[in-house]
Amino acid sequence: MKTNQPPETSEKPLILVCNDDGIDAPGIYALAAAMDALGDVMVVAPIDEQSAVGHSITVRDPVRARPWRFELPSGAVPAYAITGTPADCAKLAVNHLLPRPPDLVVSGINKGPNTAVNVIYSGTVSAATEASILGLDAVAFSLCAWNPDDFEPAARYAEIVARKVLQDGIPPGIVFNVNIPALPFDAIKGIEVTRLAHSRWEESFVERIDPLNQPYYWLSGRFVNLDEGDHTDLEAIENGFVSLTPIQFDLTAHDLLAELRSWDWAIADRRR
Amino acid sequence: MKTNQPPETSEKPLILVCNDDGIDAPGIYALAAAMDALGDVMVVAPIDEQSAVGHSITVRDPVRARPWRFELPSGAVPAYAITGTPADCAKLAVNHLLPRPPDLVVSGINKGPNTAVNVIYSGTVSAATEASILGLDAVAFSLCAWNPDDFEPAARYAEIVARKVLQDGIPPGIVFNVNIPALPFDAIKGIEVTRLAHSRWEESFVERIDPLNQPYYWLSGRFVNLDEGDHTDLEAIENGFVSLTPIQFDLTAHDLLAELRSWDWAIADRRR
Repeated sequence: MKTNQPPETSEKPLILVCNDDGIDAPGIYALAAAMDALGDVMVVAPIDEQSAVGHSITVRDPVRARPWRFELPSGAVPAYAITGTPADCAKLAVNHLLPRPPDLVVSGINKGPNTAVNVIYSGTVSAATEASILGLDAVAFSLCAWNPDDFEPAARYAEIVARKVLQDGIPPGIVFNVNIPALPFDAIKGIEVTRLAHSRWEESFVERIDPLNQPYYWLSGRFVNLDEGDHTDLEAIENGFVSLTPIQFDLTAHDLLAELRSWDWAIADRRR
Repeated sequence: MKTNQPPETSEKPLILVCNDDGIDAPGIYALAAAMDALGDVMVVAPIDEQSAVGHSITVRDPVRARPWRFELPSGAVPAYAITGTPADCAKLAVNHLLPRPPDLVVSGINKGPNTAVNVIYSGTVSAATEASILGLDAVAFSLCAWNPDDFEPAARYAEIVARKVLQDGIPPGIVFNVNIPALPFDAIKGIEVTRLAHSRWEESFVERIDPLNQPYYWLSGRFVNLDEGDHTDLEAIENGFVSLTPIQFDLTAHDLLAELRSWDWAIADRRR
């Protein structure tokens, strides 16, 4: 029998916990503790912070998996720290480290929101997306505060959503992206099903000169919500709701196919 | 006047050329040479290969931009090699290095296909997606061969597509993802407008033991096309066509919103 693993067979559901803030982040500890009430937990997370890595995977280098001491109030749970990205964590856990397919993959709880256009840059979401690509139910959780001192309300909502998903499942090819406002539990008004707000970053690069007189650039920017419609994730959070956005990774713009087929592709089509 | 820049004003369109294989890759040279026939060209590309980085951006570290000698048959064009990801290249070029917004951003020509589920991991596509997020027309080009010896047919199709886009534009929020089969130009049957094929990787991690007796893991896998429908990118390429797939980055699963709103979110909704 391998050590540092959940049981090979169990009555309980198996829940894989990942993140992008790193295995030592308080958010993943709060999430694992919440999941511990629902099933067998295994933690596989990056050894270092991996923010804004998007859907990066490690293909040109090897990945290491270091057994990690991860102590919850109920006792230690099996855990690995990975020298890779959040998507690597999901891949390696599901394909190699786990004794059976997990019933649920959760990622987070991220420090800071993963809303609107930011989802595309999110490592937290990419771990869940990778799990969904592998055919599993997956949920990403983020707390809308940059320096949160209390993950407990978010963890309670993570438990509510995870319990529901373990019971009813998620449609194939869909990830639930959940953002929790930074409010006390009793001040949160409930869950609202939302869409990603239309938004963008007004960016600039700060140019500085290093001690060797060479320039370097640092990304800086201001987030702008361009969406005045209803039921966006940003609106829900501003109004004190947890936002739950179903996201998918078929990037085809299906609505545009018919129009594009009517375009004259000129020279290119001459041989048809 | 800044040096190493295209003209601040010009009759010609300005075309930004990026990639993920690195500024020294033959594919970006072939693409820049093709674009040189259509407008003023500027090349901004990673100094090293950045495959499979997905939509990664560099936020915790500075980025360097090194002026680079990039010689085309018509003479040198302004170019920078970037210590960052493909998405960083698009961001830094548009926000800082270019004297005016580009009329078109092209990325590639990638060595190897960016089709089906692989689009989500693609650095080549992410440079184009980032440009689209910034409000620009953008196209990603990939050649469906892992060790191509001839980028010329792909470059000719890049010119055809770019000419069309410069003339007619691309709907906002859409990127054209173009894959070119590894065939002689005269054997390619034309352009087909496609959707991304439903596919997955059957993956495994090769476990090896290093000289210090520690394990490491290397991602390995076999790509499987699960899609038997018509008009997929994989089918088009197999049949000798260039595939052109419109992709978008609003990840919301809009079709599912109504159903999810009918779910009983139990405790969570108790306060409504």
